[in-house]
Amino acid sequence: MPQGQPTSVPNDGLTTRQRRNRPLLMVHTGIGKGKSTAAFGMALRAWNQGWPIGVFQFVKSAKWKVGEENALKALGATGEGGTVAWHKMGEGWSWVQRDLHGDNTDNEDKAREGWEQVKRDLAAETYTFYVLDEFAYPLHWGWIDVDEVVRVLRERPGTQHVVITGRNAPQALLDAADLVTDMSKVKHPMDAGQKGQRGIEW
Amino acid sequence: MPQGQPTSVPNDGLTTRQRRNRPLLMVHTGIGKGKSTAAFGMALRAWNQGWPIGVFQFVKSAKWKVGEENALKALGATGEGGTVAWHKMGEGWSWVQRDLHGDNTDNEDKAREGWEQVKRDLAAETYTFYVLDEFAYPLHWGWIDVDEVVRVLRERPGTQHVVITGRNAPQALLDAADLVTDMSKVKHPMDAGQKGQRGIEW
Repeated sequence: MPQGQPTSVPNDGLTTRQRRNRPLLMVHTGIGKGKSTAAFGMALRAWNQGWPIGVFQFVKSAKWKVGEENALKALGATGEGGTVAWHKMGEGWSWVQRDLHGDNTDNEDKAREGWEQVKRDLAAETYTFYVLDEFAYPLHWGWIDVDEVVRVLRERPGTQHVVITGRNAPQALLDAADLVTDMSKVKHPMDAGQKGQRGIEW
Repeated sequence: MPQGQPTSVPNDGLTTRQRRNRPLLMVHTGIGKGKSTAAFGMALRAWNQGWPIGVFQFVKSAKWKVGEENALKALGATGEGGTVAWHKMGEGWSWVQRDLHGDNTDNEDKAREGWEQVKRDLAAETYTFYVLDEFAYPLHWGWIDVDEVVRVLRERPGTQHVVITGRNAPQALLDAADLVTDMSKVKHPMDAGQKGQRGIEW
């Protein structure tokens, strides 16, 4: 993308420098590939800035992001950039269970516990860059209250950037976000019978 | 995304294992954020597989991907995963010059030189994972022949995965691709007068 210029300059009394350092809330949604992958790619830039990075995986399966997890942890361990803390909620269980069983109390609890940890870290300004991976799902399903999430994010102290991924991000979250990207599927190998493959899908 | 299942199984005589290891051509296009970022995120998975990674930047400015470059080079240097080779074509010049000056012979030459290098590496199977970053632009502008690119990619030997990024990817390239994702802009801070900021945009 060519270097961007704002299409308008807001009358908000902020200097360009202040606006440059504004904490951003970003959402990657849509049914296409690349939502989480782009969030982890952004973490590379955060690492290069020396920012503490916190990843919170509201995951479906422990194995699916192992490539990103190993790589980002290895980067954090180099000591040349930011640190990387990796949190997994409900490791090993599957969102798919929601469709198979009526009772998701356990999953809901785990998702809410994860959000409670995110709240504590935001209040303590533990990280500068947060990846709340697949967080749109528990919001969409009503497991976590969207209004509370929006309020906590709006009121977060300091300069803490947050990127949230997942399909079906609720409108209230999109409204609150500074940047929203929708990843659309144009063509996918699985449509042609291709199965997921090592190094590409995980 | 829940673990995917193919919607159909092709009658191509291949085993699932063979289909799992098929070399993939992937394209990230559209006007939204995340095209390159997702490609570099994919490189994390490739690194975790121990695959040699070749990045070819058909760049606009040397500084814009410095975060990804530093991070992926640092990863490559750990020796724990794949190697990372980073190639920049036409370092420092700007695509924007195309609109300002009539003569782009120099830029066109540099883009073509980059493609010639990619061709040599594909023939030699130098890498397992290629990022041809912003490569859609010189194709769109007719600087490099799309039909030749498609032919070379179709005939590439061995198992070499290639991801191409950039707006306006030509239809012939999309037709040849196994996976195409379109990144759409839903909302961007620059629309609200926000300028690009360190750690987020580069």
